Amino acid sequence: MSDFNLGLVGVGKIVRDQHLPAIATIPHCQLVATADPYAALPDVPGYQDLGAMLDAHPEINAVAICTPTHLRYSQARAALLRGKHVLLEKPPGATLSEVESLMLLAAEQGVSLFAAWHSRFAPGVAQAKQWLSERQVQRVEVEWKEDVRVWHPGQAWIWQPGGMGVFDPGINALSIVTAILPQPFFLRQAQLWVPTNCQTPIAAELSFTDPYGVEIEAAFDFRQTGPQTWDIRVDTDNGHLSLTQGGRRLLINDELIVDEEEREYAGLYNHFVELVASGRSDVDVAPLRQVADAFLYGYREATDAFVE
Amino acid sequence: MSDFNLGLVGVGKIVRDQHLPAIATIPHCQLVATADPYAALPDVPGYQDLGAMLDAHPEINAVAICTPTHLRYSQARAALLRGKHVLLEKPPGATLSEVESLMLLAAEQGVSLFAAWHSRFAPGVAQAKQWLSERQVQRVEVEWKEDVRVWHPGQAWIWQPGGMGVFDPGINALSIVTAILPQPFFLRQAQLWVPTNCQTPIAAELSFTDPYGVEIEAAFDFRQTGPQTWDIRVDTDNGHLSLTQGGRRLLINDELIVDEEEREYAGLYNHFVELVASGRSDVDVAPLRQVADAFLYGYREATDAFVE
Repeated sequence: MSDFNLGLVGVGKIVRDQHLPAIATIPHCQLVATADPYAALPDVPGYQDLGAMLDAHPEINAVAICTPTHLRYSQARAALLRGKHVLLEKPPGATLSEVESLMLLAAEQGVSLFAAWHSRFAPGVAQAKQWLSERQVQRVEVEWKEDVRVWHPGQAWIWQPGGMGVFDPGINALSIVTAILPQPFFLRQAQLWVPTNCQTPIAAELSFTDPYGVEIEAAFDFRQTGPQTWDIRVDTDNGHLSLTQGGRRLLINDELIVDEEEREYAGLYNHFVELVASGRSDVDVAPLRQVADAFLYGYREATDAFVE
Repeated sequence: MSDFNLGLVGVGKIVRDQHLPAIATIPHCQLVATADPYAALPDVPGYQDLGAMLDAHPEINAVAICTPTHLRYSQARAALLRGKHVLLEKPPGATLSEVESLMLLAAEQGVSLFAAWHSRFAPGVAQAKQWLSERQVQRVEVEWKEDVRVWHPGQAWIWQPGGMGVFDPGINALSIVTAILPQPFFLRQAQLWVPTNCQTPIAAELSFTDPYGVEIEAAFDFRQTGPQTWDIRVDTDNGHLSLTQGGRRLLINDELIVDEEEREYAGLYNHFVELVASGRSDVDVAPLRQVADAFLYGYREATDAFVE
């Protein structure tokens, strides 16, 4: 295949921790340059903004957008208009409607748009999906509980509109569940606990169902100290499975089937390369739609102010 | 065409005020029966629920669902599964995801599903859309301000999750704007004022934009006393238009083009009959998606408790 010349927009924690090591493993993929007014990488040309980066490096044919959510739309649009393939970090936008708008534009431009949900590339997810496709789901339980002070130190944006609060990790769980369940599902009831000094929830309890009345219960909590929990359990008519540690481990009927090192972003970039090679897009808004539904339909209760 | 034998689910204010007079004007359309555990109409067979109504009247081939929002999904699903065409009052569901699920089911069942947005059938809307399709929009202003105590007396559900507060009328404005503008648009910023004793906003200020950077400003307010305002103004590169009184009047460059009695529901039922006759569905979730986006991305501010 032809070379994959990548530009990165936004050089933050997720880029350093995840994108760079993953990109290094992808054959024929070069990181050409970055665009960020406040940060750059050693040994990689850095520019103030996307436009300057693309002007200086016309060989860039794909762009990964890893900026704060509210900036992504205009950057993605600019890249699409210049004929570049675009990867959007999760969530793909601050609103559903702007993502719809980008989908239309990518189709018009004939380039690939990829709304990346990294948790879908966790080691156990593909086998879980395959196993469930042959069974009738009877009940799902999701527990996604982590300590915000450990995992998101100083990330005040999480508590602002668009930051989504506990749904920032919770959407990862939803991206897995929407991928592995054979049926679409939807919210029936939700309770959101919002700190008095925040705009977004610190915890949520969600009850979903599907067309067959299956109960899908999810508990998200940002106040978890001690052991951290990122678990999904699915009971079926023929056995049960557990995806634990964010999908890194898969147990079927309590037997350990998958237990691998997390390599989500390598899978994610391989998928992006495949999309581009085959001229396709992959924009599944279902996880973000579930979060928007929870904000639309959830019952809000005030809780203690959050102090980091 | 063949007869249109209609069953109504939910016999509330909107059915008596709007659906019944409209249905009476549609040729070859008969109201066969109603389903509501608490209410019925004189001279029309009434049943406790949808199932009993359809059992007793197999000749019913179309169902209009006018129950509280959170009940609509299961009723619509039951009707679709029995091969009936379905009209959903606005909004089509409590969540976007349940509407998606119904769309899939209607397609599987080969029947028509119509997510009805009554304001789109206001007298001036079609001409406004036509006029705008030949122009470049430069700015949009929406003012949708009404007195909740006058228009929604005792409707406590409006203040509960799913009731949407001021977005219950506001979604009518959004249903018009999403229909008449040639470009999709999306939220950039929103402020929601939520009474301390309510779950949903009593007022909202919304700033949208479109791919060309056009400013679309909307102000919704439930606290309007005195004159009531349901106005949309659009400035273009070649003149401006105003849709006032909820779309009943259309002015182009200050000249009165349309000034007709409101007959929205007659238009709505005519469209439903056409959809069924041509084997099509019409489910545009854009207005509900805009509201979900506002709940997801809006900044909430507490305001005075609401006392009716």
